[in-house]
Amino acid sequence: MLDPRLAKDTIAAIATPPGDGGVGIVRISGSRSREIAEELFRAAKPAFTGLVPYRLHYGHILDSDGVELDDVLCAFMPGPKSVTGEDVVEINCHGGRAVLAAVLQEALDRGARLAERGEFTYRAFMNGRMDLSQAEAVAEMIHAPTKAAMHLAQVKLSGVLGAKIADLRARLEHLRAQLTVAVDFPDDEVECLAPEELIATSAEVRTEIDGLLAAVDRTRAWREGALAVLAGPVNAGKSSLMNALLGRTRAIVTDQPGTTRDYLEETVNLDGLTIRLADTAGMRRTDDVIEAAGLEMGRELMDRADLVLLLADGTLPLSDETLATAGSLDAAKTLVVLNKSDLATFDAKLGQPLADLGLEVMDVSAKTGARIDALCSRVRERILKGAGQPDPDEIAPNARQAAVLDEAAEELLGLEQDTAAGIPYDLLGVRLETACSTLSGITGEIASADVLNSIFDAFCIGK
Amino acid sequence: MLDPRLAKDTIAAIATPPGDGGVGIVRISGSRSREIAEELFRAAKPAFTGLVPYRLHYGHILDSDGVELDDVLCAFMPGPKSVTGEDVVEINCHGGRAVLAAVLQEALDRGARLAERGEFTYRAFMNGRMDLSQAEAVAEMIHAPTKAAMHLAQVKLSGVLGAKIADLRARLEHLRAQLTVAVDFPDDEVECLAPEELIATSAEVRTEIDGLLAAVDRTRAWREGALAVLAGPVNAGKSSLMNALLGRTRAIVTDQPGTTRDYLEETVNLDGLTIRLADTAGMRRTDDVIEAAGLEMGRELMDRADLVLLLADGTLPLSDETLATAGSLDAAKTLVVLNKSDLATFDAKLGQPLADLGLEVMDVSAKTGARIDALCSRVRERILKGAGQPDPDEIAPNARQAAVLDEAAEELLGLEQDTAAGIPYDLLGVRLETACSTLSGITGEIASADVLNSIFDAFCIGK
Repeated sequence: MLDPRLAKDTIAAIATPPGDGGVGIVRISGSRSREIAEELFRAAKPAFTGLVPYRLHYGHILDSDGVELDDVLCAFMPGPKSVTGEDVVEINCHGGRAVLAAVLQEALDRGARLAERGEFTYRAFMNGRMDLSQAEAVAEMIHAPTKAAMHLAQVKLSGVLGAKIADLRARLEHLRAQLTVAVDFPDDEVECLAPEELIATSAEVRTEIDGLLAAVDRTRAWREGALAVLAGPVNAGKSSLMNALLGRTRAIVTDQPGTTRDYLEETVNLDGLTIRLADTAGMRRTDDVIEAAGLEMGRELMDRADLVLLLADGTLPLSDETLATAGSLDAAKTLVVLNKSDLATFDAKLGQPLADLGLEVMDVSAKTGARIDALCSRVRERILKGAGQPDPDEIAPNARQAAVLDEAAEELLGLEQDTAAGIPYDLLGVRLETACSTLSGITGEIASADVLNSIFDAFCIGK
Repeated sequence: MLDPRLAKDTIAAIATPPGDGGVGIVRISGSRSREIAEELFRAAKPAFTGLVPYRLHYGHILDSDGVELDDVLCAFMPGPKSVTGEDVVEINCHGGRAVLAAVLQEALDRGARLAERGEFTYRAFMNGRMDLSQAEAVAEMIHAPTKAAMHLAQVKLSGVLGAKIADLRARLEHLRAQLTVAVDFPDDEVECLAPEELIATSAEVRTEIDGLLAAVDRTRAWREGALAVLAGPVNAGKSSLMNALLGRTRAIVTDQPGTTRDYLEETVNLDGLTIRLADTAGMRRTDDVIEAAGLEMGRELMDRADLVLLLADGTLPLSDETLATAGSLDAAKTLVVLNKSDLATFDAKLGQPLADLGLEVMDVSAKTGARIDALCSRVRERILKGAGQPDPDEIAPNARQAAVLDEAAEELLGLEQDTAAGIPYDLLGVRLETACSTLSGITGEIASADVLNSIFDAFCIGK
């Protein structure tokens, strides 16, 4: 069966998020979009003679019986300079589910097809309106948890990653041309490419790739948010600490329908950094079987965490369980929090055995809020590992792009090693070619159907 | 403190539903909206010299440091012919939370104020762009559960209820003028208003009001959806019936965040009619205290229901509990469902004692699906009580409007009775005046701050 994405029919979908709001948009793209819109739409102005490009027309959407469905603003954006590169119509309706469904249905009844997930952006890519890294940035932009993540997406949306890759590829292609000449005209001394020169140019490109890869780690927490897990015995005050942390930070709304969790999780925004805060206490149930399952899940959560906050009651001797947990944790991502510093029986020295294990220990009082601000700062610092707010023009590849860059860098490293080992030039060309074509995977000049599918399937319908 | 709604400052809000989508809109309204937009927006076209009314301009939103936040389409719609009657700017951004929040924040940083709930529509009302019944229709349109509800809202949005009320008021005002003349010039025989004429005119208007009120009941289920409750003993197959009903109908999505319920509830769409189907089984818990609370809640649910489906196992003698429940239910809103008609031991005669109580009884098999379609049709018919799909031009007042109409009709009835009782004309004027001013409450020529607040507070922000 033909991939529906390759069909050049006219598609339609609701482009705004689902739900109730003041305004919602039905978007139509394809060669018949203008014709369909002019069938659906009756302008309020009697002088209306058709949709004028880029003009908002006020009027009504009519059903096939001529009944007014809604009053709307309708705009026609002709290709190829539209969002998809095709003729596009956007209808701004009242933002209710029934309204949007009805208007969309009228468009479908008149010959449009319901768009697949990400199909508008896919068409923009196929029609050369954006490269693959820009298409991915659309999704990153929309799902950005914070302003910093949004900036990182916007930089890529503007095309600078694509331009950077084009530059690196051009340098490698030039090297490849030099290599070909050296192979074809081995006796021509003037044109000869010295092995040192080949290695140096490859290493330069590889250094730039490494720079891009370094940005992946440095910006990960900004782009994706981070996970901090609260662990420790039940009576150490995990819930109070959770509330204290939430109280000090601005909780952001995360009402994504359909997510169910077996543990308590809240999202906090620490100076622009999104941190999901999971409390393993939520897993504890009354009977032992579930308790065991809960503990296992807690362990798994701690493994995935960017930072584990191991909470202990600073007025009681450390339990064997706490000591055992502390011993099993990676010091690089553990922060021990000694709670109840407000009580007279609090003893900061209790933390010493844990500090001796190489763990960072902080005293706080979840009850009075003492040193909670300091804890927040420290959580942020530990998660960012010294990486501050990204620069406004930072290029931060995503996971797929990082894998591609890694592969290209490895190929270049192999090329340099082979060259140094004296392997003949005519055997090296294939390495350079592979590095070039690998890099093209970022912008999509060369991309398999599987790669494209996995990218565009992550989109929602209407994008 | 000055009601912020009366202030003529410039307001801004996200106008699309919250969540992730292809497109989201930030709307700005007020005298400074164009100026603010031109500060935020940098057009892609170098020749840009300012926002042209009703034109979609492509470009970027910049923050105060000149960093690009997003690429957008920006449109300026000058007052007074805009949605609010004021200068309006709409910025179509990528539909992500962080993006929309950042763009909105830039507008606020440049002097706009975050709009109150419903403030855009309130301004449209205050600026004479719509009457109060139209403003209410905006919210009804957005929250419409079905296409039928949407049509009913659209009719009111178009202003026909307002026009109808204006007509009725004009007739009463004319009557009032005649009455005044009759009082002021009692001897002028030519101009004299006969009591019969006064009564007849008032009764005519009242009949039209009654017609509007009849539409309230006839369309209630279409506008608001209906509640059907499944009751009966645990083993009668309530869950199977629920699933069978859900399977035969197209379930519609109702992912409104924040709703928690103590019973199972599913929404089904029976040929365009939205029915919430509550299964009281969800309330049963393991211990007796909660069981009792659950039963009480079940009783309360049944009281509120438009239809109670009392389910019984048709292979077992009716339990005393079922007979007692049946006896306590209102036959007008009860439908007995005798389940398990697929089994050899099924006995349709078991329903006879319930039929003798005046209850309608149907045999079905939730397991095989036998007669489930018939049950669906019957549920729909019983809930609609013979009221079919509303006409495309049906005027269906909402609850507030119905209360106003009721009050006006009562005043007119009093007027007719007083007139028939021979009460002098000079004492009747006040009744007519009250009826007129009461009716104005529908369109909002006369509306208290409390009424306005209760209407616009039901809106979401961004409308």
